[in-house]
Amino acid sequence: MQGLIMDVPLTITSIMQHADCNHGDQEIVSITTDNPRHRYTYAEAFRRTRKLANALSEYGIKPSDRIGTLAWNDYRHFELYFGVAGIGAITHTINPRLFPEQIIYIINHAEDRLIFVDPFILPTLEAIADQLIPVEAFIVLTDDENLPSSTLKNIMSYEHFIGTCKDEYSWPDLDERSASSLCYTSGTTGNPKGVLYSHRANVLHSYASNTPDVFNFSTGDAAMPVVPMFHVNAWGIPYASPMVGVKLVFPGPKMGDGASLQALIEEEKVTFSAGVPTVWLALLNYLNESGKSVDSLKRVIIGGAACPEMVMRQFLDNYGVHVHHAWGMTETSPLGTVNTLKAHMEDLPDTELYRMKLKQGRALYGIEMKIVDDDNIELARDGKSSGLLKVRGPWVCSDYFKMEGKNDVHDQDGWFATGDVATIDSDGYMQITDRSKDVIKSGGEWISSMDLENAAVGHPDVVEAAVIGISHPKWSERPLLVIVRNPNSDLQAEEIIDWLKDKVAKWWLPDAVEFVDEIPHTATGKILKLELRKQFSDFTFDI
Amino acid sequence: MQGLIMDVPLTITSIMQHADCNHGDQEIVSITTDNPRHRYTYAEAFRRTRKLANALSEYGIKPSDRIGTLAWNDYRHFELYFGVAGIGAITHTINPRLFPEQIIYIINHAEDRLIFVDPFILPTLEAIADQLIPVEAFIVLTDDENLPSSTLKNIMSYEHFIGTCKDEYSWPDLDERSASSLCYTSGTTGNPKGVLYSHRANVLHSYASNTPDVFNFSTGDAAMPVVPMFHVNAWGIPYASPMVGVKLVFPGPKMGDGASLQALIEEEKVTFSAGVPTVWLALLNYLNESGKSVDSLKRVIIGGAACPEMVMRQFLDNYGVHVHHAWGMTETSPLGTVNTLKAHMEDLPDTELYRMKLKQGRALYGIEMKIVDDDNIELARDGKSSGLLKVRGPWVCSDYFKMEGKNDVHDQDGWFATGDVATIDSDGYMQITDRSKDVIKSGGEWISSMDLENAAVGHPDVVEAAVIGISHPKWSERPLLVIVRNPNSDLQAEEIIDWLKDKVAKWWLPDAVEFVDEIPHTATGKILKLELRKQFSDFTFDI
Repeated sequence: MQGLIMDVPLTITSIMQHADCNHGDQEIVSITTDNPRHRYTYAEAFRRTRKLANALSEYGIKPSDRIGTLAWNDYRHFELYFGVAGIGAITHTINPRLFPEQIIYIINHAEDRLIFVDPFILPTLEAIADQLIPVEAFIVLTDDENLPSSTLKNIMSYEHFIGTCKDEYSWPDLDERSASSLCYTSGTTGNPKGVLYSHRANVLHSYASNTPDVFNFSTGDAAMPVVPMFHVNAWGIPYASPMVGVKLVFPGPKMGDGASLQALIEEEKVTFSAGVPTVWLALLNYLNESGKSVDSLKRVIIGGAACPEMVMRQFLDNYGVHVHHAWGMTETSPLGTVNTLKAHMEDLPDTELYRMKLKQGRALYGIEMKIVDDDNIELARDGKSSGLLKVRGPWVCSDYFKMEGKNDVHDQDGWFATGDVATIDSDGYMQITDRSKDVIKSGGEWISSMDLENAAVGHPDVVEAAVIGISHPKWSERPLLVIVRNPNSDLQAEEIIDWLKDKVAKWWLPDAVEFVDEIPHTATGKILKLELRKQFSDFTFDI
Repeated sequence: MQGLIMDVPLTITSIMQHADCNHGDQEIVSITTDNPRHRYTYAEAFRRTRKLANALSEYGIKPSDRIGTLAWNDYRHFELYFGVAGIGAITHTINPRLFPEQIIYIINHAEDRLIFVDPFILPTLEAIADQLIPVEAFIVLTDDENLPSSTLKNIMSYEHFIGTCKDEYSWPDLDERSASSLCYTSGTTGNPKGVLYSHRANVLHSYASNTPDVFNFSTGDAAMPVVPMFHVNAWGIPYASPMVGVKLVFPGPKMGDGASLQALIEEEKVTFSAGVPTVWLALLNYLNESGKSVDSLKRVIIGGAACPEMVMRQFLDNYGVHVHHAWGMTETSPLGTVNTLKAHMEDLPDTELYRMKLKQGRALYGIEMKIVDDDNIELARDGKSSGLLKVRGPWVCSDYFKMEGKNDVHDQDGWFATGDVATIDSDGYMQITDRSKDVIKSGGEWISSMDLENAAVGHPDVVEAAVIGISHPKWSERPLLVIVRNPNSDLQAEEIIDWLKDKVAKWWLPDAVEFVDEIPHTATGKILKLELRKQFSDFTFDI
């Protein structure tokens, strides 16, 4: 028997309409290339979004068409998030830092009809324009006055594009399961793969994000997403914020600039931010050097990579900012877990407290997690057993765009294999211990390459460290530690092994250490272990 | 084009499983008739819920069967909320304070196969048992030792019912739109009407409830629902709490008892509660008389009727408790609005501040509201225009159980007519000004009977006041004020009219005042204006 409840769909359009009705006066502040501090309200944003919807419709964009964006975080990108999805089309956010061949691949694969691009990213597109088969026009996120000269044909400014259009638009009723946005994963192997989000997934992800133990968003908050809007919808912050009327502060191209971030936080009374560890390290360095503060900032979510304990400690002890670990993937919209401690943990002794804080956190309601062994048998939630992390939930991808049924990351039982190796404790806190393809299988047991790397980079003379498994006649695999040492140091293998001795289990100690000038990286800064393994393909241990 | 996202249904089962995995150690504390302070964990609750599921299945309960409950708030009722819905059946919560003929009507109308009942409510059922056609057995919410003797046949204790069943149960996959629970409205006219909630509605309502501007629930909270579990799912608190791991404190039959509530709050460190104004008046009186405090309590949601300003002020000024108005109906699951101020309102001068606080609040994301005139034309959101309040959303009922298509409260355009008259301001804050059937239409303008009543009860000699429209040859209708005065007072009509003069518009002043010994009420304590109008059907104004 069905319940007798209205069948109202969960759509991005409804988030926009809710904010328009209830939070029309709330502010959105941006740094853009043409304005050092643009400021308007949700009401004005959505008025312009309706102009954009008319412009797209008049141009001939149809439901399900893909619209590419190559842009940083600002108000025009925000309007695209809602205007494109609102007419039933699909916002395809593209990472401008990808290698040109990857950008070419994903624009062609997504069949983007239009590309909206920041002025300073234009040269990237000019160099590859003749290879972008489906693209009909380029729309530059600025006004006519600031439109750069370009070799591109079919180019116009965003303000020109929406300029004369009406600011009334009747948003269509959409199926909540229809696609709203598309983002490609920047994997370390093969071509990027597209994750196709639905309206429903974004709404549910926003509901879960807004709860107190996650983003804790209310009308009193000002959120500054320092995670890019081209990366998994800026962790959903542009959707979660208007749902409850949060002020939005967009740093535009100034995302890695400690001084600009500090100024925005202080002047716009930012209470919340989120991003990868590198950004926070930059801000922390700036604060330490300048003696300035970030008094309004209360809560920072750090994900994408493990946050160094020192960053958490300094933010809290020196600046009163609570740093929370989070974990997610492009495939999980992205939030899977956030680390907010339970009440009874707040009084733990310092070492225990930080041991807990450094875990990736608890699953948001909506996300189910489990760890399994190589035979897909679920392992104990005891905080010790480590296994392959699998997840399931209404904002987890079921497949990749135009690859339906051709991937091996989804079980027959409907779970997504994250490729991470993790533990889960009895309180539900998950901790990543490695990537499954990087884990070293030694004598039937697993050694975490990540734990070894984290321990090694703690040494003051180590700039970067990577650990890979090398085949071993007796143990199957044993760890090789590859190190970029400080230019002024003559760190030796024995010293670093000594350094590791009280930090990891004895049988985890690397069998050899190699020093190199550089470790290979992906376009997004991840260590490219595949390449490193190639470099050391002839390596053998002295036995 | 559909998004490529897992199709994971939103079910009450998934709330239970999430809490079991992530908050198994969190506590549930109850007062029951057989235990003054029962205490266990979510893990234990859901272990017993699986035993209940087995017991129901073994008894022969099938998906969609209705299971009645006549019970106050405690852990066994909580287990029923999840166990019944979890097997795909429907929890039909029944208000034991209804008139016997209403209880007979709704049990027969719902076709309840089993009734789970609190021991001290048994006599109510014994008196009407022979008229409860579909009921096969009565299960008393206690153990064998405390099972009262009864004239009922087919009776057993709850502990006996679940006693020997296995604590493992494989929960079925459910359609998120399938019915989970049923609650009848106690209208002032006609037979009660059943609202049939779905799993999806309860999950979305819980997501919205948990956000900071609504319940603000996190693992650090302890919630004590003082709104009964037989009334619109105790405002959803039993679902919202396990979703994020809130401690639950159930006061059992002690809901109106200030001393018991104070003791529970202090001893169980309750941070949040919710209920109708009467309960909070009882607690406030007890606190004022006893000199005791409620230090842990931070936030109270008051709905069901307007909260007197004095209650809000005393709670905040004397006890540090923030009281928030809320509005909803059985038909809206129930939350429609909650009054949490926006940041810029916190600094309003005192009078303005309380003028805002006394509004019913802003719509939760998910709920759309509008006010319309008699021709269904939408009125301005200016805080002044008042019109019929209509709502729409994924937890608003689309029809009544077994009355499909035969009600007139749903528009052709899919909105639900609440029967309330309200204003909405530009910040989205809604204020109820009257019930539409009680509003007095005088010379083409509306006079709010509720505003007149609220002003009149402010007089120290007035115990209760009701205003009804009496037909008038010139103005169509004019207000008659009916008053129950203090037994020791000889309050006269002129005095109360004088009292009202600076409180309402001059043309609103009642044309006559009548003093009565008693004003008729519904079983749930609402003024029965239909009956009052009958009493005064012969009344005419002296003109």
